[in-house]
Amino acid sequence: MQRALSTTRMDGTRPNFPDWYQAVVREADLAEPSPVRGSMIIKPWGYGIWELMQKELDRRIKETGHENCYFPLFIPMSFIAKEARHVEGFAKEMAVVTHHRLKMIDGRLQPDPEAKLEEPLIVRPTSETIIGDAFSRWIRSHRDLPLLINQWANVVRWEMRTRLFLRTAEFLWQEGHTAHAKAEEAMAETLNILELYRTFAESTLAMPVIAGEKSANERFPGADNTYSIEAMMQDGKALQAGTSHYLGTHFSEAQNIRFQDEAGDLTFCHTTSWGVSTRLVGGMVLTHGDDDGLRVPPAIAPRQVVIVPMLRGKPEDSDILAYCEMLANHIGGKTAFGERVRVFVDKKDIRSAEKRWDWVRRGAPIILEIGPRDVAAGNVTYLRRDHLRDGDKVISDRAAHDRFAGEAATMLTGIQENLYREAKTRLDSNIRSDITSTAALLEYFGASTGEDDEAVEFKGWVRAPWSAPTGAKLDKVEVQLKASKLTIRNAPLDQPGKAGKCIFTGDDGVEEVLIGRSY
Amino acid sequence: MQRALSTTRMDGTRPNFPDWYQAVVREADLAEPSPVRGSMIIKPWGYGIWELMQKELDRRIKETGHENCYFPLFIPMSFIAKEARHVEGFAKEMAVVTHHRLKMIDGRLQPDPEAKLEEPLIVRPTSETIIGDAFSRWIRSHRDLPLLINQWANVVRWEMRTRLFLRTAEFLWQEGHTAHAKAEEAMAETLNILELYRTFAESTLAMPVIAGEKSANERFPGADNTYSIEAMMQDGKALQAGTSHYLGTHFSEAQNIRFQDEAGDLTFCHTTSWGVSTRLVGGMVLTHGDDDGLRVPPAIAPRQVVIVPMLRGKPEDSDILAYCEMLANHIGGKTAFGERVRVFVDKKDIRSAEKRWDWVRRGAPIILEIGPRDVAAGNVTYLRRDHLRDGDKVISDRAAHDRFAGEAATMLTGIQENLYREAKTRLDSNIRSDITSTAALLEYFGASTGEDDEAVEFKGWVRAPWSAPTGAKLDKVEVQLKASKLTIRNAPLDQPGKAGKCIFTGDDGVEEVLIGRSY
Repeated sequence: MQRALSTTRMDGTRPNFPDWYQAVVREADLAEPSPVRGSMIIKPWGYGIWELMQKELDRRIKETGHENCYFPLFIPMSFIAKEARHVEGFAKEMAVVTHHRLKMIDGRLQPDPEAKLEEPLIVRPTSETIIGDAFSRWIRSHRDLPLLINQWANVVRWEMRTRLFLRTAEFLWQEGHTAHAKAEEAMAETLNILELYRTFAESTLAMPVIAGEKSANERFPGADNTYSIEAMMQDGKALQAGTSHYLGTHFSEAQNIRFQDEAGDLTFCHTTSWGVSTRLVGGMVLTHGDDDGLRVPPAIAPRQVVIVPMLRGKPEDSDILAYCEMLANHIGGKTAFGERVRVFVDKKDIRSAEKRWDWVRRGAPIILEIGPRDVAAGNVTYLRRDHLRDGDKVISDRAAHDRFAGEAATMLTGIQENLYREAKTRLDSNIRSDITSTAALLEYFGASTGEDDEAVEFKGWVRAPWSAPTGAKLDKVEVQLKASKLTIRNAPLDQPGKAGKCIFTGDDGVEEVLIGRSY
Repeated sequence: MQRALSTTRMDGTRPNFPDWYQAVVREADLAEPSPVRGSMIIKPWGYGIWELMQKELDRRIKETGHENCYFPLFIPMSFIAKEARHVEGFAKEMAVVTHHRLKMIDGRLQPDPEAKLEEPLIVRPTSETIIGDAFSRWIRSHRDLPLLINQWANVVRWEMRTRLFLRTAEFLWQEGHTAHAKAEEAMAETLNILELYRTFAESTLAMPVIAGEKSANERFPGADNTYSIEAMMQDGKALQAGTSHYLGTHFSEAQNIRFQDEAGDLTFCHTTSWGVSTRLVGGMVLTHGDDDGLRVPPAIAPRQVVIVPMLRGKPEDSDILAYCEMLANHIGGKTAFGERVRVFVDKKDIRSAEKRWDWVRRGAPIILEIGPRDVAAGNVTYLRRDHLRDGDKVISDRAAHDRFAGEAATMLTGIQENLYREAKTRLDSNIRSDITSTAALLEYFGASTGEDDEAVEFKGWVRAPWSAPTGAKLDKVEVQLKASKLTIRNAPLDQPGKAGKCIFTGDDGVEEVLIGRSY
C-alpha cells in the first residue's frame, strides 16, 4: 500500500529529507510560505501546536518565578550603534524602518519623503538592548534583585536562505532576561533554565536532547558562557533547540545596570538571557514525522482524538453522528497530561476516507472511524498514529465503546512515551565515541557535497575528547570541520571523570564534545 | 487621610482626568513610555492583566468555532497599493521598512544603501490584505466555508498624539477574519461577535457597554456595516472598546476570494473582521480606578489575594511567614471564576506599610496584612479594594483564619459584581434623553475649550432620535458636533418601537443614537 505522502524520507536508497520535510509541513497543514520573502503563515494546526508548547513552557517559566512583560517591536538605531562600536566591520541583517507614511505621488504609492524618520528604527532581532535599557531604570537596590523577566514576541532577522519553521526572517519566540546581584546566582539561573528547557523538550515534545556548553566561538556575542540543548533529527543532523546565556557584567556595563548593595556600594548586575522559538515545531517534524506525514506528541496535539463519522447521505447518518457525539462526550470527560482530553468530531462534508488520511498526515494521535456497524455493535474502530502500520498494512483496532474512553486517555500517555522512546533510541545508538583522530572523523563523515548535503547518508554524531582550544587554535579546528560541514554542537554537562587525548590536537583532553552536521 | 495617589481625579473642583490617568498607569505599575516614540513597555502587572483578558477572550473565540493562525508582520507595499487605488489623496501613517541591513560606513552606523529592498514592506496596521490573500488560496468550495480565523498579534499605526494603552503606535490585539457563503451568515457572525464582546466586557472586565451600529461616516473603510461596543469612562467620555465589521463582498472582490457553490458556480464570499486591543487595559483604568489607584476586577487580577506579612527582623518573623504560607495554601485551594484563587505572599524586603500601599495602588482585590497578633489569635486582617474607605478612613476587617479561605472566594465574586454595579449605575444614570434640539445639545455640552477638553465638567452622553442621514447631510451634522468635540457613538441595537423627531434635521427619526465626547 502507498504511504500517505507522495514524498518519503528515502527515495529508494537516496535520503530525501529536505523534500520530505517540506511535504510534511505542507500536507500536515502546519504552515505555508507567505508573499513576503522569508516569512511564513502558520496555519491553525501548526499554530495550535505552538500554542500548546507555549502554554506548557509559560507555565514552567512562571512557576520558577519569572514574570511576563512586553517590550516595543522597534529599537532605536542608536541602541544598536552602541553595540556596533565594539564590533569591527559591523554589518547586521535587520529590517530597518526609515519612513512613517505612504503617499500617492504621481499616481504611484511610495514612502513619503516628507515622512522620513530622523533616526531609523530597527525591527527587533532580539531585545537585549531595549530590555537592558529598562533594567537600568528599574533596578536601584539589591532589594530589586533578582529581576526575572520573560517576553513572548515576534522577532525579525533577515535570512538569505529560509526554510519554514527552521529558519525564517520573522519567527515567534520567548526571550527571558534576568539580572542578579551575584555571578553564582546568574550562573545558577542560566543552568536552571537549561534544565527547564531539557525537561520541557523531553517530556512535552517527546524530543530527547543533550544539554551542554557551546564552544568559545559559538557563544552569543557578549556572553561569558552559552549553553544549548541539541536534538538529533532523523537525518542524523543536530538541531539547536534552545539556548541559555550567562552574560556576566558585559551588558550591565554597556547599559549601566547597577544596584546599591547592602554595604551601600553601586555594583554592576550579572545578567542572563535565554530563548526557544517556533523552530521547535520544525524540530518536532524532523523528530516524529514518518512517511505518512506528521506524528504529533499527544501532549501538544490540538486534537488528541479525532472522530470521523462514516456518513453516506442516508437516514442512519443521524444515528452515527449521535453515537460520535456520545463518544466525544465520554472521551472529553477523561483526563490526560493533567487536562481534559481534546476530542473532535470531524463533520466536514467530504469523504470519510479522505478525512482519515488528512488526520493521519496531520498526525492526530488517535483517529476513530465510526460506521453503521460500529453503532450497531457498540464498538469503536480506531488507528494509533504512533504505530499506524504492520509492514505496509494499516493497523485498525476495535474496542467496546463503554471501555474505550478510559483506554483512550491511557493510550495517549502511551503514545507520548513511545514517541520519546523511539527518538531516544535513535539518539543513544547514533553517537559514536570510537573515533580518535581528526582524519578518522573527516573520513567517517566524508567531504561536504555542497548544497545537497542534507541528502547524504545518515551519520549521527561523534562524541570525542578535546582540549577546548580558543583563539587561533579553535579557528583552525573549525576550518577543518567546515570542509565536512561539521560543527562542535556542545560539551555535554554530563562528562566522564577524565577525558582522553584531544581528537584535534593530541593534547590532553579537558572534556568531551559532540560533533555533527546541523540545521 | 491622604489618598494613595498624589494626583486625584478632581483637583478641587477642576476635573483632572488626563493627569490622574497617567498617575494610575505609572503608580499601578502597568506600563511606561519606551525610548521609541509612541511605543510603550507593558510591565508585569499590566501584562498579567492583559494575559488574563486574552485567555478568557480566546476561550470564547475558540468556543464559537474560530481557530488561531499567525500571519506575517510585514505586508508588501503592492498589497496596500491595490487598496490605495480606490482612495483619493491616499496617505497613510504606517511604518515602512526600506532596508534589510545596517552597516558601519565612515564610522557611522546607517542603513546599507546596497541593502535597499526592491519593494518596501509595511509593518501591518491590520491584516485584512494579507489574510484576504491567503483566503483566496484556501477557499475553493462551499465545503471550505465558513472559514473562521483569529490572530493575536502586534500592529503598528503611526500616531501623532499617543497615550499609554489608549492610543499607541504599536499595540497588541486580536483580529478575527471570517468568510461565509451567504450574506445572512456573515451578518450573523458580525453580530454574534459583537455580543461576544459585550458579554466579555461586562462579565470579565466588569465594564458595562452599549452595543450598536456606527454611522455611515464612522464605518471601517470597505465595510457595509460597522458595529461597536461603547463604554462610559469616569469623566463621561466614551471609549470604543471593540468593533465588528460586516464587509459584504468588497474585500472578496478586491482579493478574489471565491468559492464554488453547490450548483458549481463561482461566487464571491461575504467576509467579516473584528478586533479588540490593549486599549481595554486603558478602559479598565478609566472605569475602575479611584483616588487610591487602580481597582482590578478580580476575574482579571493576576493576584487576587495578596498577603503582606508584617516582618520586623525578629525571631517571630518565621512564625508569621509560616502562618502566611498556610493561609496562602488554604486560599489557593479554593475556586473563583472557575479557577484556583490566585494568591501571593509578598516577601519583598521592604516595610509592610509600603507593600500594602503598593498593592492598593495596583488594585489587588483583597489585601491581607498579617502581624504577630493575627498569628496569636488565628485571625486574618484584610482590606477590600472595592470598598477601601469609609469617608477618609481605611476600612480594615478581621476574620477567623479557618473560615476566611472560603469567604475570600465568595468575596472575589462580590467585588467583581460591585465594580460592575458601580459602573453600570454611572452608565445608566448619565445618558440624558430629554434633549430635543441641536441647539440644546450644543448648549448642554458647551463649546470645545481646545486641548484641555478632557478637563471639563462631567456630562455623560445624550441619547436622541435622528434620521440617519448620509452623505452631505451627515457631514453637516458632524461639523456641528465637532465644535463641541462630540461624535455619534453608535445607534444602540436596543431601539424603541418608534423613534421621535430627528434632533438634527427635524425630520422623522429612524433610530436613536448616542452622542458624546470620546477617547
